[in-house]
Order: sequence, then structure tokens, then C-alpha cells
Amino acid sequence: MKTPTSLEDLIESLRCLPGVGPRSAQRMAYHLLQRDHAGAERLAKSLAYALEHIRHCEKCNNFTEEIVCELCRSERRDATLLCVVEMPADLLMMEQAHCYKGMYFVLMGRLSPLDGIGPREIHLDRLLKRVQDGLVREIVLATNFTVEGEATAHYVGELLRSKEVKVTRIARGLPVGGELEHVDSGTLAQAVIERREI
Amino acid sequence: MKTPTSLEDLIESLRCLPGVGPRSAQRMAYHLLQRDHAGAERLAKSLAYALEHIRHCEKCNNFTEEIVCELCRSERRDATLLCVVEMPADLLMMEQAHCYKGMYFVLMGRLSPLDGIGPREIHLDRLLKRVQDGLVREIVLATNFTVEGEATAHYVGELLRSKEVKVTRIARGLPVGGELEHVDSGTLAQAVIERREI
Repeated sequence: MKTPTSLEDLIESLRCLPGVGPRSAQRMAYHLLQRDHAGAERLAKSLAYALEHIRHCEKCNNFTEEIVCELCRSERRDATLLCVVEMPADLLMMEQAHCYKGMYFVLMGRLSPLDGIGPREIHLDRLLKRVQDGLVREIVLATNFTVEGEATAHYVGELLRSKEVKVTRIARGLPVGGELEHVDSGTLAQAVIERREI
Repeated sequence: MKTPTSLEDLIESLRCLPGVGPRSAQRMAYHLLQRDHAGAERLAKSLAYALEHIRHCEKCNNFTEEIVCELCRSERRDATLLCVVEMPADLLMMEQAHCYKGMYFVLMGRLSPLDGIGPREIHLDRLLKRVQDGLVREIVLATNFTVEGEATAHYVGELLRSKEVKVTRIARGLPVGGELEHVDSGTLAQAVIERREI
């Protein structure tokens, strides 16, 4: 008794998804073939379509179906500001906060030497070129405040030190509505160190 | 700023996978497009191929690329025995145990009224027909010893009571190498109740 080859192929293929091991892959394959043919067909099609049509914006490196994305082409954005974020989801969060009207550069990752992700993998050569377009005056580093995000911000900061641009980092501190009693001490310490005059 | 439609489609499509919510779907889509184009292409292709070619065996209901699967066509199997399992993975485990040389019927699930899975969804009508082929003498119920697996075994047992076949259930008890000290009391109790003469 053998599993059909095409089923084995499907199970093996599903393992390329992050966080999916042999058992989940098998469960997923059974589910798709047994309970959700329509969803599976849609997935196969949208995956093939996305692979063919989605590329990286030549300016901001975000996912887009065009050469330069809608945001980068917009004339209502402030071209003197360039915000560096790790992932497209971070860009979306920034936009939802309605606090920023400049341009973006999406690293599509963060420095993580242990995972083999160095400066080249997060496209810092392209960022460097992007910064020197003659319009950008300030780089706003908005990578995460994780160890890797901080290291990335530090590295990018050093990289841009010699360029004629101001480099800033988004602020750390208590969240809006945050209470001292419930905040972790690291955040509180940073909030005190980075206190500002009012 | 908008996410490209094809990317949104892909994220939405990935949510049909079991256990994948909006955040994992987004992470998966980014991973596929950013880090594993080859794997994504393979997934799209093998999924499309599997959808087109994989069907259910007319005799045992297992996944196959043929009308009647290799195992059901084999003349070296004992056609008087029919083992009922929940999933293809269970059939593989039975085969790996090299303890059984009869035929199978794969329910592709278990009775679970709360999830809307009733007798029709686990193909009991087809099982009933399969049992009456004139060759089968004994039905071996090998559903899991979970609440749902037990309920399924009980239901199938009742269903076949009036037919001219013997219905058996695989044994419950201590696992091979199991120690009384470390086994749960439910299993130990069953092992005592189902003790047999030696």
C-alpha cells in the first residue's frame, strides 16, 4: 500500500510554509482534498497568480503589481521623509496610525546573522541608493524594538552617518493609556531616560 | 497605500488551511513571495495537480489516482476481513505494524455532530454497500479510542448488527513496554476489564 505520489508531493510541498511540519502538512493536504476543494482551487490559482504578478517596488521595495507602487508615485506624500520599516505589515500599521505622510523603504526582514540574513538580504545597498535621490532629508528608523530590530536600526544608522541626511528613531516609552504600575521595567526605564521637556 | 489585490487574495486563500488565521496567512504569503519562490511554485503546481488527479477509491474510499486503488486490487490480501479506520494515516500505521492482511475502508473522518459530521459525511452508506459484497466475513473497527472515535465505532457496530458479518473492535490495554506505574488509570482499568485467559 502506497500513498499516491501526487498526494506525497502535495504534503512535501506544503512543508515550505513557515511553521508547517510533516504532521500539519499531512493534515492540511487531507483537509484540502477532503473538505475544501473550492478553497484549495482558489489557493492554487491565487498562489500561481501572485507568483507571476507580484514584484518589489523599485523605490520602496514593498510588494506591488507595478514597477513603482501607488504610494511612491503619489504626489501628496512628503518626499523629504523616508521611513524604514521591517515588513509590509509595519508599513500598514504606520499608515493606519495616520501620523506620517512621508515615503517608505521596506527592508523585507531584519538583520539576523544566525538565520543567514545580512545587509544584502535586507537590501541595504538599495536603501543607500534610495537615500541619495537628492530629495530625502530625514530617515525615520521604524524597525521593531526587538533585539534584531534594534541591531538593524543601529546598523542602518551607522551606514547613513556619512550621508547628508538626518537619521531619527521612533520613540520608546509607555503606550498610550499605559499605567506605570502595569508596564515592564525595561520600558519604564527607557521612558525615564528618554524623557523630554514639556 | 493599499496591499496589492493579488497579495490580499493570496493571504485570504491561505486561510482555508486548517489552523491558519489572518496573521499566519500573512506571514506565509510574505515568506512564499520573499524567501521561497521555488517552494511556492512547487506548491501551486502540486496542489493543482493533486486536485485534478486525486480521487477516492471506489472500494476503500482512500485517496488514490486510480478508480480502484492498488491495495483493493491486490490478490494477496484477505478479502474476508474489512478494517474500518478514520483517516489514511491510520491505514498507513496499520500497514506499518504488519499485523493485518485484509482490506480497508477509510471513513475520512469520524462522527462529530458538533462539527456537522454525521453518518453521511463519513460515507457509512458506502461502507454498508461495501460490507455486502458476499466476501467480507468480519469487520474490524479500528477507529481511535477518543470520544468521537468510540462513538463512531459504536454507531458502525449498531449499523452492521443485522448484517451477516462478525464485528470486532481492536483491543484496548497497556502499550507494549508499558509499565503499570506510568500508565493512566483509565487505560489500566480497561486492561483489567478486558483481561483474557492465557
